[in-house]
Amino acid sequence: MKQSIIIFYIFLLSAGLYAEDGSRLWLRAESGHNATVTANKQSPTVDIAKQELKSQWKGAPIQLIIVNSKELRNRGKDAYRITGNKLTGVSVLASTEQGLLYGAYHLLRLQETGNDAGILNIEESPGYDIRILNHWDNLDGTVERGYAGRSIWKWDELPNRISPRYVEYARANASIGINGTVLNNVNATPRVLSKEMLEKVKIVADILRPYHIKVYLSINFSSPASLGGLSTSDPLNSDVRQWWKDKADEIYRLIPDFGGFLVKANSEGLPGPQDFGRTHVDGANMLADALKPHNGMVMWRAFVYNPDGEDRAKQAYKEFMPLDGMFRDNVIIQIKNGPIDFQPREPFSPLFGAMKKTAVMPELQITQEYLGFSNHLVFLASLWKEFLESDTYCNGEGSTVAETTDGTLFPHPLTAMAGVANIGDEANWCGHHFAQANWYAFGRLAWNHSLSVDEIADEWIRMTFSGNPGFLNPVKEMMMDSHEAAVNYMMPLGLHHIFAWNHHYGPEPWCDIPGARPDWLPKYYHQADSVGLGFDRSETGSNAVSQYYPPLRDELNDIRSCPEKYLLWFHHVPWNYLMKDGRSLWDDLCYKYDTGVKQVRNFQRIWDQSEKYIDAERFKEVQSRLKIQSRDAVWWKDACLLYFQTFSNRPIPYDIERPIYELDDLKNIKLDLEHHN
Amino acid sequence: MKQSIIIFYIFLLSAGLYAEDGSRLWLRAESGHNATVTANKQSPTVDIAKQELKSQWKGAPIQLIIVNSKELRNRGKDAYRITGNKLTGVSVLASTEQGLLYGAYHLLRLQETGNDAGILNIEESPGYDIRILNHWDNLDGTVERGYAGRSIWKWDELPNRISPRYVEYARANASIGINGTVLNNVNATPRVLSKEMLEKVKIVADILRPYHIKVYLSINFSSPASLGGLSTSDPLNSDVRQWWKDKADEIYRLIPDFGGFLVKANSEGLPGPQDFGRTHVDGANMLADALKPHNGMVMWRAFVYNPDGEDRAKQAYKEFMPLDGMFRDNVIIQIKNGPIDFQPREPFSPLFGAMKKTAVMPELQITQEYLGFSNHLVFLASLWKEFLESDTYCNGEGSTVAETTDGTLFPHPLTAMAGVANIGDEANWCGHHFAQANWYAFGRLAWNHSLSVDEIADEWIRMTFSGNPGFLNPVKEMMMDSHEAAVNYMMPLGLHHIFAWNHHYGPEPWCDIPGARPDWLPKYYHQADSVGLGFDRSETGSNAVSQYYPPLRDELNDIRSCPEKYLLWFHHVPWNYLMKDGRSLWDDLCYKYDTGVKQVRNFQRIWDQSEKYIDAERFKEVQSRLKIQSRDAVWWKDACLLYFQTFSNRPIPYDIERPIYELDDLKNIKLDLEHHN
Repeated sequence: MKQSIIIFYIFLLSAGLYAEDGSRLWLRAESGHNATVTANKQSPTVDIAKQELKSQWKGAPIQLIIVNSKELRNRGKDAYRITGNKLTGVSVLASTEQGLLYGAYHLLRLQETGNDAGILNIEESPGYDIRILNHWDNLDGTVERGYAGRSIWKWDELPNRISPRYVEYARANASIGINGTVLNNVNATPRVLSKEMLEKVKIVADILRPYHIKVYLSINFSSPASLGGLSTSDPLNSDVRQWWKDKADEIYRLIPDFGGFLVKANSEGLPGPQDFGRTHVDGANMLADALKPHNGMVMWRAFVYNPDGEDRAKQAYKEFMPLDGMFRDNVIIQIKNGPIDFQPREPFSPLFGAMKKTAVMPELQITQEYLGFSNHLVFLASLWKEFLESDTYCNGEGSTVAETTDGTLFPHPLTAMAGVANIGDEANWCGHHFAQANWYAFGRLAWNHSLSVDEIADEWIRMTFSGNPGFLNPVKEMMMDSHEAAVNYMMPLGLHHIFAWNHHYGPEPWCDIPGARPDWLPKYYHQADSVGLGFDRSETGSNAVSQYYPPLRDELNDIRSCPEKYLLWFHHVPWNYLMKDGRSLWDDLCYKYDTGVKQVRNFQRIWDQSEKYIDAERFKEVQSRLKIQSRDAVWWKDACLLYFQTFSNRPIPYDIERPIYELDDLKNIKLDLEHHN
Repeated sequence: MKQSIIIFYIFLLSAGLYAEDGSRLWLRAESGHNATVTANKQSPTVDIAKQELKSQWKGAPIQLIIVNSKELRNRGKDAYRITGNKLTGVSVLASTEQGLLYGAYHLLRLQETGNDAGILNIEESPGYDIRILNHWDNLDGTVERGYAGRSIWKWDELPNRISPRYVEYARANASIGINGTVLNNVNATPRVLSKEMLEKVKIVADILRPYHIKVYLSINFSSPASLGGLSTSDPLNSDVRQWWKDKADEIYRLIPDFGGFLVKANSEGLPGPQDFGRTHVDGANMLADALKPHNGMVMWRAFVYNPDGEDRAKQAYKEFMPLDGMFRDNVIIQIKNGPIDFQPREPFSPLFGAMKKTAVMPELQITQEYLGFSNHLVFLASLWKEFLESDTYCNGEGSTVAETTDGTLFPHPLTAMAGVANIGDEANWCGHHFAQANWYAFGRLAWNHSLSVDEIADEWIRMTFSGNPGFLNPVKEMMMDSHEAAVNYMMPLGLHHIFAWNHHYGPEPWCDIPGARPDWLPKYYHQADSVGLGFDRSETGSNAVSQYYPPLRDELNDIRSCPEKYLLWFHHVPWNYLMKDGRSLWDDLCYKYDTGVKQVRNFQRIWDQSEKYIDAERFKEVQSRLKIQSRDAVWWKDACLLYFQTFSNRPIPYDIERPIYELDDLKNIKLDLEHHN
């Protein structure tokens, strides 16, 4: 039954029965080709690979072959090799069934992007073993920082109704190499581990399994007490430890390949081991011990900070570095790309490269909490590549973040990359049609972080919209410029976290809420005063630069050598400071905001000219969101320039389009947005 | 007492005690100079002239001389001559006291605009005998189409309190030559003629009299019945006629120099002689007969139209032309500049030049009902000059509208020009500081219609703000471009009346209100369809062109020779019609709207750069309104282009900034505005 459901939905998806509402994502190959596909093994996973190719492959016969190849095995369980020629025949070889599945999707991608000509000789294996989505989905169906409707996980409907989205979701993820998913919010309720919930999770796990996607759960550290009825959740308490072991056993009885736990502990009010005088090590290792017999693992988040007077950007490093080397080998520390919180641009977290004796994994945010929700077109591959290619200098020059985490520099048993999902139950999954590209890019980069932004955009556009050069080239240019544009109109030159309170949509650099945590207020970050702008994290300031390796430390510390894109992150810079282009800081700030506005207007122009190449439905929806983005860019520009002008007391250069809003009016904007929907 | 109040306020006004809130208008000469001024007559009017000069004149002694000069008398009662030299002595000569007053203000204007050097040899007399404001002020203090607060006429306060604004108002008007004012709305209530009201009007008249400003009233044609208790208001009924005579006697007993009546009759639901089967002639002449013994006169409005199927633009002509020559010599027909209703741009009303045997007067609208209220900076001198210089060809080439009305071509005993006032009780009188320039320009053009737009702007800027070339030149450029900019972003190429229902602020070309008069709906005027845009008033359409004299008639009738600024007024033009610049109508329409937006943004740039030249208070207030104007220009552009695009089905040229709004969202905008405030 289960398998026939899956095949049925593959049929529906492939047959083009869907309106052009974006629900088909990048999976738009023509179906019904009835290609000849053979396989030397039969299994749910191999059958999916066969069926996908049979339906969509337009070339010569394909053999899917499980091989006993030491070479392939050495490249990891997910590796595959593709040889042959679409005119005469193609072989996909792998040592595992998922290798065949990934190979099949690779072949179809080649076909759909027009790269299937000539002799094929491809060998692929992933950069990270675990390529995992983090859903910040609450059990009540809301999604924290979700901008594409409600959760796709319909817990209330299970087990009576099984949403067709589950298998569509699995297929989409498998097609880009994602092999894990955390189903619930890191701000987790203990209830997720209840028997009733676990039985529902099992159903989802069963559906995802053929696509080789493991299920994980976020847990609440106080579950033993609040769910289990124990008197404590102290990780060194033997009853607590037993409770977790029993809970792990219970889970694995239902879901034998359950992935493990994601834990947000002692962070933003969530419970954790420190509540009992214990350490992150105590907490993580206790959970790791419970999961270890089942080959489960713990992803322990390093996103911790307190309003204790220390620079927030320094706190995760200060808290975790002393613990380096003390974690079990099935624990991995999950670190957000930047030291603060998924800002439009951040320098990389100094924990990357510094924690050498502990496995660490990047946490990227696919959902655009700080980048215009699902209203703004921002292709995040640029941000992530900038991060992954950042040189930590931890082992000398060329020690990129990617190499500190993918096993190249530090051979830990676990390598992983997490992305906070941007998926909801709206027809097009992600709210903005172009937000699908971020889901796609996350999967592709987690598989292969050496892919260029251009390559990923190129693939996605060809598969999702059109390979017509009249469309492809300008739209790709737009995508590739889009992150820098957003940085320009939101927070250029190293500015960060000047967002509106709580919902983080628009600008509120002036935000001041009586009694609020100072490190949740924009002025904590921008530090604007009559002298200048920016957070002094140099040696004369918070000395956050000291957490980086030399020579980067010195480069960042010196205002003259600090890259200007991070200038206000690391320095409090005088308004009249002379920038590299010969302008003052103030003038450059103005020009950056103005450039951002112009860039978005150019995106509108590019998009409007693309109308004839694509369907009217998606054209209009993207056009409409670009209008919002264009308005928002002006809002950002006016808000930030008019506000900072109250400190700089300098005119906005007169060749820049003048503000159209009053600062006081902008201050009165209070959007009725929650931090979930 | 009265005179001492006046002098006191002159002192206050001159002494610079006021904040820079715009309340001083263009009257900002330094006071306290104690110049030597002599006069050969003493009277309240001469005393004002003396006092103004004594306080503000910085030159040599001045003689004010009433002379018995045939030459001056021949130039009219208001004429004056200025001779001499500010270094040695100046004489102002006139045959009347008001001539001396105007001469005094002329001298001060020369001084304040820096044009008082060298030998003075000036002889001036006005183009129109009656230079009159029409206040659309209701007795309850609201102002129809008023955008500067409530009425300055505080009827409820009179006679107990006398607003200082009355004398300030008189002085401001006298300084620009205005010599009449209609105190109440043309949509008049009978109550204005009640004894109680007339006694209050007398107080105002007494205050204005020394400044040589006559008071007039708008009357309601049904007053004999509704106020007088008669059974009818039929103008041929002897009781009615007697009632009006008695009422005139009553008025003149209180106000011996009362000017006369302004009448809106059988127009937009107001009562009139046609209610009794009589004609406009019957009505106007009856009133004229009542006023004649007192030298009073009747201004009878030609603003009449009915939804009877005939082109609204033709109706006033059709109704009044048969009556030409039948009116008493103390009746003047008051005709709006255009055939519809004070649109951003209209061709002149064909009644000008056509009614040769009847005195006619232009009615201009100073208040910006159709030009952005007091939010938009639009210098109306450009509009009025275009109108006054329009060639009617009524007596062959060169028969300008000005010459058809100022006595040059048709020597009627009355010449007049009316302006619907933009004055309210806000501190700066007009809402927008630059709206003061329109009040100023109206007065100056009514005095001398040969003044150029540049000259008027130059005078006003120098007197109101600064003569510094760094300010003067760009700001003058802005003012001179401002009318064309408004036409561009609102209704270019002859479009008209596509305003929002009732309040006339923003765009509503789509407006369709079930049951509404068709001639009050935008589609009546724009006639957009799949073929094209515009109202066919050529011979093949309504033939409104036939109301103009040849060769203008033929020029307008032929789509190829019709000036493009009137194209859509006179023709239904195909979207692909080739314009003179080689573009299609649709493309040109798009570029016009876009140009309008760019022009306003340039105004913002000009204004922002002017900051250092003027006071912060007015700088910021104008800056703020330019922001609104800039936003509104984009609103207009998007609304009109997106709406008309639903008919043209053509893309907006891609080098134009893209729309930022959705048509459906714009359609949902319903501003909570009344047509008065």
